[in-house]
Amino acid sequence: MKFYSSEFSVQSRRRMEIIDVTDSVNEVIKRSGIKNGFANIWVPHTTAAIAVNEHDPDLWEDILATMDRLVPQKSSYRHNAKYSWTHGEQNAHAHILNCLIKPCVTLPIKDGQILMGLWQSILFIELDGPRLRTVQVYVVGE
Amino acid sequence: MKFYSSEFSVQSRRRMEIIDVTDSVNEVIKRSGIKNGFANIWVPHTTAAIAVNEHDPDLWEDILATMDRLVPQKSSYRHNAKYSWTHGEQNAHAHILNCLIKPCVTLPIKDGQILMGLWQSILFIELDGPRLRTVQVYVVGE
Amino acid sequence: MKFYSSEFSVQSRRRMEIIDVTDSVNEVIKRSGIKNGFANIWVPHTTAAIAVNEHDPDLWEDILATMDRLVPQKSSYRHNAKYSWTHGEQNAHAHILNCLIKPCVTLPIKDGQILMGLWQSILFIELDGPRLRTVQVYVVGE
Repeated sequence: MKFYSSEFSVQSRRRMEIIDVTDSVNEVIKRSGIKNGFANIWVPHTTAAIAVNEHDPDLWEDILATMDRLVPQKSSYRHNAKYSWTHGEQNAHAHILNCLIKPCVTLPIKDGQILMGLWQSILFIELDGPRLRTVQVYVVGE
Repeated sequence: MKFYSSEFSVQSRRRMEIIDVTDSVNEVIKRSGIKNGFANIWVPHTTAAIAVNEHDPDLWEDILATMDRLVPQKSSYRHNAKYSWTHGEQNAHAHILNCLIKPCVTLPIKDGQILMGLWQSILFIELDGPRLRTVQVYVVGE
Repeated sequence: MKFYSSEFSVQSRRRMEIIDVTDSVNEVIKRSGIKNGFANIWVPHTTAAIAVNEHDPDLWEDILATMDRLVPQKSSYRHNAKYSWTHGEQNAHAHILNCLIKPCVTLPIKDGQILMGLWQSILFIELDGPRLRTVQVYVVGE
């Protein structure tokens, strides 16, 4: 049983933004030398998330617009009121969306490849950018 | 450390539909011979999802009605506009719901059984049917 | 390859409530003696869920208020109508939110520690309390 962990950075440029990180994740899995097992993709943040969906920047705008409609950035949040003195903590919407979208996904690895479908990409979802973010990849297997 | 992967098909009959796949998943886990470890249930699609909840077809209608209310099939989506020439790609709602519900779940396996609660079933959620779909099961353990 | 499973109880006091279970999860992981691998946190219930976010009781109120706005406790649910004779089954909202938030999370363990970020805590989300609940922890690794 082998373990391999690595991480990479993602620089977001907008308040809410989707960034395809499939290539970076695949590089870590290749570097791990692990052929069969699981990879856990983990965002160590409470205001960003991970999803798996299509690489289509138009769709990404739809996803972000829907998230913003369901959990608006501006609303009467207690978290924001408590931290009303700091611009950086006006982000309850991002915390709430993280609880829905989740900061992680566990992927099956077979013969050195992620068992993903043709249209699936690993998407980093920035919910409170722009920020420099970290994505951790933890691979367990043989 | 052993690995076992298999898949099975699911034929959906409606645009949005919930289908209980617990028995099919249990069969794969039994066939794997793995007694302790994890099973990853993975839908290699971007417009279908996996949840774990009660086997109650009435509840399933409530779940689908709520999803449809939160992320309506008909709305002004960029993804749909871009592909306005094809009926098959009027499915931004399904992509967005997949980002929320997720295409996968990782289950603990102990003594050859999924450690699920009495009322928990594994539910395949079709968001853009009817289609013939695939559910992958990847088991790692001993 | 080692396996260790344990569980602990959580007593909720309100209909919807967030309870930080990070310390209890950490205790199980320490007790397991497993230094590298994965831990699966599993709620064997269909009306409670698990998230990973900040330990901020004000934020928790924002999260619960948003969930209640998106999927109201009182609405015309088939599940509730079918079980109209029992107060205990007026909980379709909780089932639906469980499908969105999920009853589980898989965490990476490295050098005996969960690879979580500084602001991340493991949050048990009660959606249909008050109830005595179980949280299962299943650790696989070496």
